[in-house]
Parts: sequence; C-alpha cells; structure tokens
Amino acid sequence: MSDFRLHAQIAADTARICDWPLCRVLLMNDARFPWIILVPRRADVVELINLTEHDRIALMGEIARASMILKSWTATRGGCDKLNVAMIGNVVPQLHAHIVARRRTDSLWPLTVWGRGEPVRYGTDELAIAVTELGDLFTAQ
Amino acid sequence: MSDFRLHAQIAADTARICDWPLCRVLLMNDARFPWIILVPRRADVVELINLTEHDRIALMGEIARASMILKSWTATRGGCDKLNVAMIGNVVPQLHAHIVARRRTDSLWPLTVWGRGEPVRYGTDELAIAVTELGDLFTAQ
Repeated sequence: MSDFRLHAQIAADTARICDWPLCRVLLMNDARFPWIILVPRRADVVELINLTEHDRIALMGEIARASMILKSWTATRGGCDKLNVAMIGNVVPQLHAHIVARRRTDSLWPLTVWGRGEPVRYGTDELAIAVTELGDLFTAQ
Repeated sequence: MSDFRLHAQIAADTARICDWPLCRVLLMNDARFPWIILVPRRADVVELINLTEHDRIALMGEIARASMILKSWTATRGGCDKLNVAMIGNVVPQLHAHIVARRRTDSLWPLTVWGRGEPVRYGTDELAIAVTELGDLFTAQ
C-alpha cells in the first residue's frame, strides 16, 4: 500500500473525505450530482480483475457502505431516485469506482453522467460544508 | 429465487448464455462491443444495496469471473484495452451489471457506451456462434 499514489487527474477533480481500510474516499467536485469516488489504495491497479479476490470483496463492501451513506446524505439535498455505480477508466487508468446519486429531475436523467456536460464546481464554502458533513458520515462507526 | 423474472426490456436486448449460481448471464445483442449483462436471479432488486451482503459478494465474484472470460473471448476478436463495469438502471430498474470490453479503436472510445449511438444487432448466424462460444467459456469448470 505504500506505493499508492492518487492519480493527478482524480486529485484535481475531487476533494478528499477520508481513507477507509481499502479505498480513499473522495467527493467529486461537481455540484450537479452527489458523487463519490472510491480509489483502492493499491499501486498500479487498472482493472477490477487486477485486485486480489480479498480486495475485490473489500471493495464491494466499501461500495455498498458508501452507497448507503450517499443515499442518506442526499435525503436532505433533494433525495436520490437511483444510485449509479461504475468502474470505467477509459480516460484515467487508475482503478476507481463512481457512486453517483441520481434524481429524475437532474439535468441529465436518465442519461449517464460520464462525458456529458461540464462539471459545475462547488463554491468554496459549499465544498467545505459538504466535505465536513460527508466526513462525519464516512468516519462514523 | 423462484419469483425471479427477467425484465422484458433486458430479454429483448440480449441473448441468454447460461445461469450461474447468482446471476443469469446474457450477451447484449449489440455487435459494436463485446458486452455481457449479469442479472442477479432475485425478485424485486433494484439497487446493489438491496442485495444481501452474501449476494453482493457473490455478485462481485461473478463480475470478476465474467470479466476474465470476456477479456479472453475478445483476444480472438480484436482484443480488449479496457473493461467497463457498471450498474446504472436509470431506464430498466431491475438490477443488472454491464461488463463491456472496450478498444481504443472502437466507435465510441473513450466515451461510455450507454445511450450513445444505435445498437447494431448481430446477424443470426453470428449471434448463434457468439452464444455457443461464450456458452462453452461460461460453463467451463
């Protein structure tokens, strides 16, 4: 795990929330959608099938936990009609999982979010509030 | 499991390969991309977090196994530069996982495949050959 280094593009597009046993937990800096990124803290992993079976099971557990937290966070922010979970990596090769809370009223519904429209950055205060709120939820026991 | 019924839209868009312990394994009838769909054979499941923890771990195992098989199948069909794995469900609510083999030379690279372009159906013979080849690979011990 010592060789893990977050890809520069992911670092530029997100704000850090915390580290979980396997993954770094990040908030995508795009206020259009409540959007979490999980990055397994393993060096040189591109595909899900590059992870060990043990890590794949841990990743599934962290995806599920993050999904539940994101859904509960959105309850105070317009709700969530569907969670979208994906590992794509066509642009940024470092393995990362997207968890996106979608609403039937959001700007892209029912289309997927990847490669559509321009990100809308959170305001500075707004980002700080989101990261604090999510930090509390993601680090609660 | 007895109440499981494949969603009509998924049935219309795919060809059946086999049943695995958790999932029905299907080939997306879109010759643009080697594309497998896994549908957990559980009734009324929409979100990943609706599955039990046991089933989520089984799903991760079947996604990994299907990814490896799809990658090896594509070795004779132009190769695979990246696997895209996703559970979206904005249009068809029944939980299903996409596993798509992507190439840097395919028609949409690096964009995602969902909601872009029109599906290109396999020819009848071509589909039968693909289902037979994949059936052999997916049912091998």
